[in-house]
Amino acid sequence: MRIAFLLFDGVTALDVIGPYEVLSRLPGIESVFVAREPGAKSASGGLRLLADQALSDVAYPEVVVIPGGSGVHALLNDEPVLSWLRTAHSRSRWTTSVCTGALLLGAAEILRGLRATTHWRSLELLSSFGAEPVSERIVESGKVITAAGVSAGIDFALLLASRIRGDGMAKAIQLALEYDPRPPFDCGSPEKAGPELVELVRQSTQRAES
Amino acid sequence: MRIAFLLFDGVTALDVIGPYEVLSRLPGIESVFVAREPGAKSASGGLRLLADQALSDVAYPEVVVIPGGSGVHALLNDEPVLSWLRTAHSRSRWTTSVCTGALLLGAAEILRGLRATTHWRSLELLSSFGAEPVSERIVESGKVITAAGVSAGIDFALLLASRIRGDGMAKAIQLALEYDPRPPFDCGSPEKAGPELVELVRQSTQRAES
Repeated sequence: MRIAFLLFDGVTALDVIGPYEVLSRLPGIESVFVAREPGAKSASGGLRLLADQALSDVAYPEVVVIPGGSGVHALLNDEPVLSWLRTAHSRSRWTTSVCTGALLLGAAEILRGLRATTHWRSLELLSSFGAEPVSERIVESGKVITAAGVSAGIDFALLLASRIRGDGMAKAIQLALEYDPRPPFDCGSPEKAGPELVELVRQSTQRAES
Repeated sequence: MRIAFLLFDGVTALDVIGPYEVLSRLPGIESVFVAREPGAKSASGGLRLLADQALSDVAYPEVVVIPGGSGVHALLNDEPVLSWLRTAHSRSRWTTSVCTGALLLGAAEILRGLRATTHWRSLELLSSFGAEPVSERIVESGKVITAAGVSAGIDFALLLASRIRGDGMAKAIQLALEYDPRPPFDCGSPEKAGPELVELVRQSTQRAES
């Protein structure tokens, strides 16, 4: 089973690596990293990740994972990327996104009529693609699964791992990752963070953008 | 302020990217990726990350982050890497590890006499480096901070972000990452997982290794 992760300049690294770290541990999985032009892609913050496949090399992956990041916006009218996504989705077992990767699914017309989520700052944008925005951490709409901002990709991938190989395997991966989170603060959602912190993050520069 | 992340073949990607995604969002931070030989490094699972600096290019970073992974063991007797680590530690503001990266701190004699932690499967190995193994998610021993397995790097980095720039900034980053975790299972530590699952993960192949 091949899982295709889309890479692009301005991707948020954790949007990719959270799901990758979980899903690549499933037996019989091949992770492939695709891009419009293969090569090094710069994540926000400076790290470079290598995309070794062109879109046309991976026409029909079983699972598609679309991460978010500031670079998503440049792709919303990119016909080769949208066309690849539509074609892949036509035969995929799962088509998924993390964070603002959902906007790309929306631009490819994949979310029309579906419940979906994305980073809380971008949630309202989903309506413009005909989706029903839902403020949940993971939203399953048939084979389309969307996850909320950045770190939600880990929770989403454990859920997907359980769908692919059962709860036992997903639990083993969760233990192997020692995923027993203890966030130092209780402010990971807008509701918990309160209006001041929300406003601070909304106004923050692209540096803190997701 | 420069933060140096050590890369090597067989690194666990999330050990690096968890802290990177948090710390690279701090204002005034430069993230650098160093390796014994610069170039593409293969993480477990196939993803390649680019190290653009040689060890000698980054002799005195303010913060050192050593990730773990199956590739750590090949470095435990690697004098250039250990020597770089000792030199960097001599002037660093913080010297840190995630997961089995702690074994490398141990091999560089940095943990002698200190409380420290690592992935639960490797915890007992810390004694052989003169450290006091502690089963906690994050262990601060002065400027040396060690984090438990893989996903603990996110919690550790938020703590370090608060030490570097204060709680307000750390909270803003936590909200920007929408880090309000909802693991699908309650099995992220050996205590919670129970003996059967622990044994399964212990016996699992290198594929599931961290």
